[in-house]
This record gives sequence, C-alpha cells and structure tokens, in this order.
Amino acid sequence: MPSQLEHAMETLMFTFHKYAGDKNYLAKDDLRALMDKEFPGFLERDPMALDKIMKDLDQCRDGRVGFQGFFSLLAGLTIACNDYFVVGYAEHYRGL
Amino acid sequence: MPSQLEHAMETLMFTFHKYAGDKNYLAKDDLRALMDKEFPGFLERDPMALDKIMKDLDQCRDGRVGFQGFFSLLAGLTIACNDYFVVGYAEHYRGL
Repeated sequence: MPSQLEHAMETLMFTFHKYAGDKNYLAKDDLRALMDKEFPGFLERDPMALDKIMKDLDQCRDGRVGFQGFFSLLAGLTIACNDYFVVGYAEHYRGL
Repeated sequence: MPSQLEHAMETLMFTFHKYAGDKNYLAKDDLRALMDKEFPGFLERDPMALDKIMKDLDQCRDGRVGFQGFFSLLAGLTIACNDYFVVGYAEHYRGL
C-alpha cells in the first residue's frame, strides 16, 4: 500500500495524464480545463493568467506543456502556499 | 472542498512539516526518517543513498534541507516515475 506521500505523487501524475490524454502534453485548452477544475476561481482573478502561465511553461514555444512544465507550475504554487503557511503559523504562535 | 490536486499539494506540504517540525528544515536524521517511512525500502538499495540525496539537496552545505530542496527531491522522483509510466503505457499499447 502506498504511503500518503507516494499517493500524493501518484495524484500529480494521474492529473497530468487525465488532461493531457494520449498526446502526452497539455495544449492551452487542456491547461484551461485543468486550472478551471483543479484550482477553481484561479483564472478568474486575472484575464491574462492563462496566457502568462502558458508563456512560462511552454519553453519550446510550441504550444505544448509537458510533465516537467506541469510540475514547475505545481512547484511554484506549492512553494507560494508553503511560504504563506509558514508565515501564518509563525504569526499565529506569536499571537499576531 | 479542495480538488484532488489541491489535496495532493497539501499532503506534500504537511509531510515536509511533519518531519521538519518547528525548526522548518530537514536535518539528515529527519530526511532519513521521512525516506524510511514515506518511501519504504528506497534507502536500503544503496548504503550511500541518504548521503547522496543530502548532498544534492543541501545546497548551502549547512546540513539543512528546506521546503524547496524537499520539493526538488519529489520533482526528481515523480518525473522519473512518470517517464517509467509513459514508457510502460506505450509498450503496453504496442504489445511489447
């Protein structure tokens, strides 16, 4: 039986393949569908968000985001959430 | 309610903090405990594995692995698993 961490890593992989399908990359429409479903409300905050994300991740400028690009997106989001969590935790214990 | 992907990202964060504790970094013993518990058997294959991982992740050479270092470890492992998964999937459908 996988550990919780292994299960989480499996979820990251399966999520990519769910939206990438057999072609094994995310086109812009796949990325939009993934963001809408997995991070509801995220794209609504900035009408240019999808274009900005696509530009960051599509390093070959071929309109395709591979698994490593997808993982970079998750890294950025998770590290930002973690920084927020650590600050919040510290402030909570300092009574701020 | 978080999506499956958000839940998986939350698990990555909480796993780091579970082993890092209040000091907010993984020392070598914390990393050993994490690897033993979350990736059972991984370290047993190579007696030098923990030292190699620590050397890769501890970029400041201060014996501390922060959240970004931990995420790099997960990136390496998940990307390797994904490559294996994609090859296996392709071979399965080619009937190899």
